[in-house]
Amino acid sequence: MIRIGIFLNTNYGADEDVAARVREAVQQVAMARDYGFSSVCVGQHFLTEYQKIQPIPLLSRLVAESGDMRLLPGIMLLPLFNPAYVAEELATLDVLSGGRLLFGIGVGYRDAEFEAFGVRRADRGARLEESLAIIKRLWTEDEVSFEGRFFRIPKVQVRTRPLQRPHPPIWVAAQADAGVRRAARVGDVLFLNPQARIATLREQAQLFRRTREELGRPVPDEMACHKEVFIAPDMETALREGRPFLEGKLKMYARWGQARELPPASADFAADGFDDYRQDRVIVGDPEHCIREFRRYRDEVGINHFSCVLNWPGMQHWQVLRSIQLLGERVLPALR
Amino acid sequence: MIRIGIFLNTNYGADEDVAARVREAVQQVAMARDYGFSSVCVGQHFLTEYQKIQPIPLLSRLVAESGDMRLLPGIMLLPLFNPAYVAEELATLDVLSGGRLLFGIGVGYRDAEFEAFGVRRADRGARLEESLAIIKRLWTEDEVSFEGRFFRIPKVQVRTRPLQRPHPPIWVAAQADAGVRRAARVGDVLFLNPQARIATLREQAQLFRRTREELGRPVPDEMACHKEVFIAPDMETALREGRPFLEGKLKMYARWGQARELPPASADFAADGFDDYRQDRVIVGDPEHCIREFRRYRDEVGINHFSCVLNWPGMQHWQVLRSIQLLGERVLPALR
Repeated sequence: MIRIGIFLNTNYGADEDVAARVREAVQQVAMARDYGFSSVCVGQHFLTEYQKIQPIPLLSRLVAESGDMRLLPGIMLLPLFNPAYVAEELATLDVLSGGRLLFGIGVGYRDAEFEAFGVRRADRGARLEESLAIIKRLWTEDEVSFEGRFFRIPKVQVRTRPLQRPHPPIWVAAQADAGVRRAARVGDVLFLNPQARIATLREQAQLFRRTREELGRPVPDEMACHKEVFIAPDMETALREGRPFLEGKLKMYARWGQARELPPASADFAADGFDDYRQDRVIVGDPEHCIREFRRYRDEVGINHFSCVLNWPGMQHWQVLRSIQLLGERVLPALR
Repeated sequence: MIRIGIFLNTNYGADEDVAARVREAVQQVAMARDYGFSSVCVGQHFLTEYQKIQPIPLLSRLVAESGDMRLLPGIMLLPLFNPAYVAEELATLDVLSGGRLLFGIGVGYRDAEFEAFGVRRADRGARLEESLAIIKRLWTEDEVSFEGRFFRIPKVQVRTRPLQRPHPPIWVAAQADAGVRRAARVGDVLFLNPQARIATLREQAQLFRRTREELGRPVPDEMACHKEVFIAPDMETALREGRPFLEGKLKMYARWGQARELPPASADFAADGFDDYRQDRVIVGDPEHCIREFRRYRDEVGINHFSCVLNWPGMQHWQVLRSIQLLGERVLPALR
């Protein structure tokens, strides 16, 4: 079985009516729920040239409309925060949602975020690992004290826990190979990058499985990725309508410096054109094309949970609803 | 007019079914909404011997059920956080709720929190003021850079804004006189302490107004406080049922060291008995008694928005619902 989730774009233009866009997102999630989508995912960035909606409040807002869907902060920039905050904020979301949290974490890459939060970029991986170790202890032990390189927890009695025991699944985002090894070491599910070529994803999935085996940790049943998807009733419409959104988004990632995070074979995405990009990085097409593509990523890489970016900056609400309907009626049944 | 809000107790015992308690809280808020309560308030603490629910996710969860009620994190422990995080997380809650956020902030007082978040207790007031200054700039300026004593923001273009312009009302909690002066200096509304005697509140309200006048800042129409309220159909039931809950809660505050925050005339609360406490710190009684007490605080202190703590640790759901009904049907109409 291949699972499909919806990733909500929460980057809005400077002059957009954000409250209206959020109302639309609530409707999109309710519709995805009714079609049997598996998860709803919201990303995190700070200090952007866009109007931005933060993931924890939005996912909490969506508890009422999201049925059995898993709620996925995708990803939370763990190095920026104190682990006591993250442990209790995320435990709350897990409790509020009846145990539906997927704990998506990553190191982040934007310079403005590291500088504003006073975090050295070079420390981001070590901070993530130390923070996660503390969070797991706060979630599972009655008395905790900790002295680490970055954080110190005094001896405390602590009882705030997620509903899922011992803790929600930990999805670790990875762009570079170092991130893949980290995901194998400290995570439960590898959460792959949307801009990498399928060849890169295949190598990273193999690296993940090999590292798990070396560590003696079980290889998980689930493997996930973000994936940009534009689906329309026919191929010609998909290509014509999808192209400008995709090109705009690629430029944004390039400005944010995401390319330098990826292995060389996948780092050229800003320079590549739409046609190259469509080959093995994004899914743009009619329902049959989308079914083939999801199966290809499953067969070649092992990915079986796709968090689909359906609502790109500037897209109309009806286009997102059309994508949800087409995925729900024409694609999901073929993937079960 | 006197406004009544509901403060949700989110301290749960180590073995309580927190998910069930949260479902009850949602029902309580929906009922308070239907009776015309003005606000819903959730407090913040970390690393407690209780199971704890954090305010931002819970208030976000309650957006759907809270109608026109204002949403009040009461209070957020501002010195513990990076201002870029607070600015965007709270802007999100304001957008999600259609502009219903009251931005409740305070310095905090629990040692475990300061230690875990790496904040010197002596810096808490200065950190709050610096953080708030940055947050206001992030909420109102298109390009921000900041070099302060505690925080540094690199030059960034930033567009994430609350829906309320220029920003949501800033409620500043105060326990000691220094906090009252700070509230006058940087806040919009003074948010008074629930454990202070009415004589202390009267002096602090006067200090607030005097400081505003000295600063040439307008004296706001609204003044608020937390207030522990136990209401029952008759006085005898109120006293008999209310006493054990109140005594338990006082002991918790005493353990947490809250007494040392208050002026000397009010700092003795842990030693005092229930009868003394009822005189001029909490409201326990039948509807007529509650009406008289709310009016007394309004007339003697100037408080006209009460965030009422109705659900104390260990209380039954039906007792909270009874309090909401009695306040809604018997008390609120007399206060309009």
